[in-house]
Amino acid sequence: MEEDLNQIVNSSSYNGEEEQGDPESNTLNQPLVKANRTLSSTPLALVGTKVSHIESLDYEINENDLFKHDWRKRSKTQVLQYIFLKWTFACLIGLFTGLIATLINLAVENIAGYKLLAVGHFLAQERYITGLMIFAGANLGLTLVASVLCVCFAPTAAGPGIPEIKAYLNGIDTPNMFGATTMIVKIIGSIGAVAAGLDLGKEGPLVHIGTCIASLLGQGGPDNHRLKWRWLRYFNNDRDRRDLITCGSAAGVCAAFRSPVGGVLFALEEVATWWRSALLWRTFFSTAVVVVVLREFIEICNSGKCGLFGRGGLIMFDVSHVTYTYHVTDIIPVTLIGVIGGVLGSLYNHFLHKVLRLYNLINQKGKIHKVLLSLTVSLFTSVCLYGLPFLAKCTPCDPSIEERCPTNGRSGNFKQFHCPKGYYSDLATLLLTTNDDAVRNIFSSNTPNEFSMGSLWIFFVLYCILGLFTFGIATPSGLFLPIILMGSAYGRMLGGLMGSYTSIDQGLYAVLGAASLMAGSMRMTVSLCVIFLELTNNLLLLPITMIVLLIAKTVGDSFNPSIYDIILHLKGLPFLEANPEPWMRNLSVGELGDAKPPVVTLQGVEKVAKIVDVLKNTTHNAFPVLDEAEVVPSQMGLGTGGIELHGLILRAHLVKVLKKRWFLTEKRRTEEWEVREKFPWDELAEREDNFDDVAITSSEMQMYVDLHPLTNTTPYTVMENMSVAKALVLFRQVGLRHLLIVPRIQALGMSPVIGILTRQDLRAYNILQAFPHLDKSKGRKAH
Amino acid sequence: MEEDLNQIVNSSSYNGEEEQGDPESNTLNQPLVKANRTLSSTPLALVGTKVSHIESLDYEINENDLFKHDWRKRSKTQVLQYIFLKWTFACLIGLFTGLIATLINLAVENIAGYKLLAVGHFLAQERYITGLMIFAGANLGLTLVASVLCVCFAPTAAGPGIPEIKAYLNGIDTPNMFGATTMIVKIIGSIGAVAAGLDLGKEGPLVHIGTCIASLLGQGGPDNHRLKWRWLRYFNNDRDRRDLITCGSAAGVCAAFRSPVGGVLFALEEVATWWRSALLWRTFFSTAVVVVVLREFIEICNSGKCGLFGRGGLIMFDVSHVTYTYHVTDIIPVTLIGVIGGVLGSLYNHFLHKVLRLYNLINQKGKIHKVLLSLTVSLFTSVCLYGLPFLAKCTPCDPSIEERCPTNGRSGNFKQFHCPKGYYSDLATLLLTTNDDAVRNIFSSNTPNEFSMGSLWIFFVLYCILGLFTFGIATPSGLFLPIILMGSAYGRMLGGLMGSYTSIDQGLYAVLGAASLMAGSMRMTVSLCVIFLELTNNLLLLPITMIVLLIAKTVGDSFNPSIYDIILHLKGLPFLEANPEPWMRNLSVGELGDAKPPVVTLQGVEKVAKIVDVLKNTTHNAFPVLDEAEVVPSQMGLGTGGIELHGLILRAHLVKVLKKRWFLTEKRRTEEWEVREKFPWDELAEREDNFDDVAITSSEMQMYVDLHPLTNTTPYTVMENMSVAKALVLFRQVGLRHLLIVPRIQALGMSPVIGILTRQDLRAYNILQAFPHLDKSKGRKAH
Repeated sequence: MEEDLNQIVNSSSYNGEEEQGDPESNTLNQPLVKANRTLSSTPLALVGTKVSHIESLDYEINENDLFKHDWRKRSKTQVLQYIFLKWTFACLIGLFTGLIATLINLAVENIAGYKLLAVGHFLAQERYITGLMIFAGANLGLTLVASVLCVCFAPTAAGPGIPEIKAYLNGIDTPNMFGATTMIVKIIGSIGAVAAGLDLGKEGPLVHIGTCIASLLGQGGPDNHRLKWRWLRYFNNDRDRRDLITCGSAAGVCAAFRSPVGGVLFALEEVATWWRSALLWRTFFSTAVVVVVLREFIEICNSGKCGLFGRGGLIMFDVSHVTYTYHVTDIIPVTLIGVIGGVLGSLYNHFLHKVLRLYNLINQKGKIHKVLLSLTVSLFTSVCLYGLPFLAKCTPCDPSIEERCPTNGRSGNFKQFHCPKGYYSDLATLLLTTNDDAVRNIFSSNTPNEFSMGSLWIFFVLYCILGLFTFGIATPSGLFLPIILMGSAYGRMLGGLMGSYTSIDQGLYAVLGAASLMAGSMRMTVSLCVIFLELTNNLLLLPITMIVLLIAKTVGDSFNPSIYDIILHLKGLPFLEANPEPWMRNLSVGELGDAKPPVVTLQGVEKVAKIVDVLKNTTHNAFPVLDEAEVVPSQMGLGTGGIELHGLILRAHLVKVLKKRWFLTEKRRTEEWEVREKFPWDELAEREDNFDDVAITSSEMQMYVDLHPLTNTTPYTVMENMSVAKALVLFRQVGLRHLLIVPRIQALGMSPVIGILTRQDLRAYNILQAFPHLDKSKGRKAH
Repeated sequence: MEEDLNQIVNSSSYNGEEEQGDPESNTLNQPLVKANRTLSSTPLALVGTKVSHIESLDYEINENDLFKHDWRKRSKTQVLQYIFLKWTFACLIGLFTGLIATLINLAVENIAGYKLLAVGHFLAQERYITGLMIFAGANLGLTLVASVLCVCFAPTAAGPGIPEIKAYLNGIDTPNMFGATTMIVKIIGSIGAVAAGLDLGKEGPLVHIGTCIASLLGQGGPDNHRLKWRWLRYFNNDRDRRDLITCGSAAGVCAAFRSPVGGVLFALEEVATWWRSALLWRTFFSTAVVVVVLREFIEICNSGKCGLFGRGGLIMFDVSHVTYTYHVTDIIPVTLIGVIGGVLGSLYNHFLHKVLRLYNLINQKGKIHKVLLSLTVSLFTSVCLYGLPFLAKCTPCDPSIEERCPTNGRSGNFKQFHCPKGYYSDLATLLLTTNDDAVRNIFSSNTPNEFSMGSLWIFFVLYCILGLFTFGIATPSGLFLPIILMGSAYGRMLGGLMGSYTSIDQGLYAVLGAASLMAGSMRMTVSLCVIFLELTNNLLLLPITMIVLLIAKTVGDSFNPSIYDIILHLKGLPFLEANPEPWMRNLSVGELGDAKPPVVTLQGVEKVAKIVDVLKNTTHNAFPVLDEAEVVPSQMGLGTGGIELHGLILRAHLVKVLKKRWFLTEKRRTEEWEVREKFPWDELAEREDNFDDVAITSSEMQMYVDLHPLTNTTPYTVMENMSVAKALVLFRQVGLRHLLIVPRIQALGMSPVIGILTRQDLRAYNILQAFPHLDKSKGRKAH
């Protein structure tokens, strides 16, 4: 599949000159996969690093006869089963996410710990070249494992996964995103990539892992070995799966930052498109379980049973023992941090976008190229991390500090590196360690002179470069950590520059710097604030953090969209925004429908041949079902007969009908029992549209199918003069896949459906392709 | 108005026997105001303690020609003005809410402080009767002020206001709810009632005050003296006012508990019906401002410039200096607290509901009765608070405790009361103080033996009684504090009973007890958890609080709805729930429409006489506008003419047309400039439907009006076979006021509109009145 699609991508995706011509407006709006030029063309998108066909999800309740029957039949016991299972799943999601987060943490810390110990051993003997070989070799090996796994077994495991999850919850099904293979590759790949010292985090991957757990639980196991437990059938629909995946993403964030409320808010603010109060409560339960699991393991690890990992807390940013103070006059530096964070964040977004486009060119060339790219980045990272500390001066240990100095063990603030006894290298402390320890060191308070300005500069510049060039490689990679590393470095530098002006501790500057850069790049507010609150466990910091975040987000928003939105655009995922564009008020859905090919309709009792024809020659996922109205009640006595809209039938159900050969020899309506016998309700929920292996004989072709019982009789409709803006609000708020356009004039012989709108039709980008003048009118207004 | 409506209320509201006959299902579902017996009858509801006509709000964008023109004309500058003003308002809401919260706190503490000092003076002289006279007299006077203000000037200021705010954000306009008078009465009344030692809080009222500020800012001042500033016109619509009021409610909660994140989450979880990510950010900004204001005043007050209030923190539940510890084995008592909290909470809801029904009978009798009821409750409270401590034993002071004992000053844990020197009365410590101090005392940690079990029992029982009988009186009254007082007492008692089983501090038991009762009664989870987190400033408590809240809510939910839902039902506010009832799937909107009187339609160019007739003889707020379709495009060549649905026109706009006498002498379509000349867009946004003072001459009656330019051409529609469940989802998700039902059969001579649905039509209670068999089918299923 991947190779086949490369051609399409190649032909249209990257055009360097065009991009340079109008870098401002075009760059961000042009996805890498540009197959969807016109309205409703085949939807293709980059999922992970692979181009795939994507489908929309059916969140709308399909009210056909079978569903109604099932609904009426559903007993109180079944409702209780459903509720019980819902909560059990919420608990299990939390449990498994907590356990896997612990596993990843332990593995990373132990692997990286032994690696660093070995390197330290050679450093102590002044065998620097051997040390480099060991260091770079180990990193290359770990990167190779992560990269090969990703490239060969689960391309969707590459990257953070958060954009795809966001898209899923917006109603876009990305294939192979939440499978068992993806999860296992993500876990192992994440351990490898993080332990290899690459500039990427395990936070994004943990969110993805949480959602994989949720999805696997909901469908009863991996795709090929699904449990056929009866209770599970309640979850065999897109609505319940959506709730589970929301739970999973909250649990993932909670596991990454040990921040239960932050996790819930992250899911609410950043990831989810639809939200209900009930979901708030359920995600909260999941994150509570995660926290309990993590606490338990922290207690176990504190007693020294976790190998090298040992004490020090299970989760990276354990800065809660630190106390900071600040005063009202500190508003100026705080504002400054916010502004700079916003500018840097949007700059980061801008350049990361360029790098991702470049990487896409390389990744398109094949699997080998993907792996080689990863290895190159790993080698570059290793050389920098190892080589740069030689540039820094050695600092004499401050005898007044209680901590052992220099510390050559696994953790600690004062690495000796190449320095003589009684001295430490501040840059080695930051570079030759795990990323988590680097953050902990740079966040450390009451250590104003520990890191020299020069070292911080080197660190900052290095991590800016690494942050830009590491993210796009084919390994699981989170965005949080690179941004935190960059932000904390610039924050601490700013603190140093402020010097005696403020009394804010440099460690607090680092925390605020990290927060501001996160807000400047990811544009979250409340969830970030709560995450930082839960990390620092200091409520007094709340107002100051809030101000920094608000300023950084405002500044960032005035330049470009958030990094996740940029990635969504790049990947070509048809994400529906919450707010319609202003020009959408000037276009009616009728005009939009006219720009599409005429709608394909079916009769209530339809010939098999017609159905096969329609399925073969169209790619639509639903077809309006029309009936001759038998008796028309009319007060004016004018009615003589007309056409009735019976509803909408899904492609998957048509395929099902053909597969089951549910054919009638004569043209008649069926009884309810006939269809109930053939189609159990839960079976219809399966997504099945592979039509190729159905062979229909020519005699069968002449038979009929009664589509009525399978038709969703209550599709949502809009009148043709509805503005696109209002239709979009309806589409997104209610969570639709298809929206029928009905005429506003009642007259004989008119079709009651004049069009059908899907997600692709309502996307601003696609509409502007078909109606370019709308964009101009917008441009005219802006100037 | 109030007196006129009493009759309606009397005739149908309270029927003791009927209620006893089926207490389970009927009690909670029958509102006190039962005028809305059939579908779409005149909507009446209790607002505060007053029966009022209520209207729905127009959240839908009214896309008529004027709006479209205004939209096209809107320049970038205007958009910037709007954004600037939006954020300025968010800031001002926070600022004013913070200032008023400070004012209320200072006033309450100082008034109550001087009162208690005076009482203490007489107690020290053993002049107990004089002490009682002073105490009860002061309390009566304060209650009188609060009550008289409420009854005479602003009946809507009575109660907490939160249910009405919830209803407003759900789309129900309650008159005089957010006016200047209401706000001032609420502030003064709240100070009076809380300083009078009544068992009610200032938290609910603060939320109401926050929303009043927001509404007043949005409309540019009090109703009669509104600023005519041009920029304000952007906020002259229900959508933007909704956002402002959401901001105000978040700021209010934040001011009450000094809990910014909790405030935002409260608004999200409990108050708001529609929520957008952008709102999260804006409410967060408001609450950040509140916190900054409060911090500033705390610093000022800590330096002793706030009178008796003095040090000790501006906000009541300042328990952040306390540290608690707990262990894994404590899961059993924690579960127990949760279960008991859930049971007690739902019991409280049940009995409070009964008391409110009883009080409603008394309140209906007139203003004097309302005041007398308040005074009776005040007198009872005073006698209990003063008298009961005589029952408690005197406890010898523990010399090992540093605090001064007995403390006779304003605050402190050891009140001497009638005890000899060196002894203190534990019950007086809890009762003869402000409610805030009582909470602080009962939350205090490391004081296991300070309060005897007997005193706690007396305290608990007293506050159960007071909590039930205080809430319904005609003063501003919050529900948070009574519940916290009850809950903390039972929690601490439970802690005492547990004795040596656990190591949890009794203060922590009190906190958890309060949390569990709140969850058991109000059924909030995440917001409560965050509020308690921000109160205790101890992240380690998070998992334990979460578990307590989840258990209490689950237990409570299995008995009855949350207290706010009960009050909403009682008041007859037509609140639309998020989830449709199961039986709604078995009813189509067509059947629902048939149960209503036929829809009243207007012609595109209509005679004045018809408009006057329609306005006089119906109470509908919108009318479909139909046109003869001039040319019918038809592919089959059968079309000859038909009826076209042009859109929906609002009653307010028809009244406007008549008032402005925008009549045509001939039947013709108008040009756009003609209407633009007459109707500025912002003027049309005014809610104006008082039609009585318009006198139309008989010659004018024969003239015509062109309704086209004023018609909303894009109303939302559903087909007649749509199930009520799905229509309700659409109605509520998109935030509609009117939903048109269109036929599914296309035929000549059919009206393109066969019905119109409003909020009242979609309420389960109303539908069941018209379709009683649906309820039976539900009942059948349940058994």
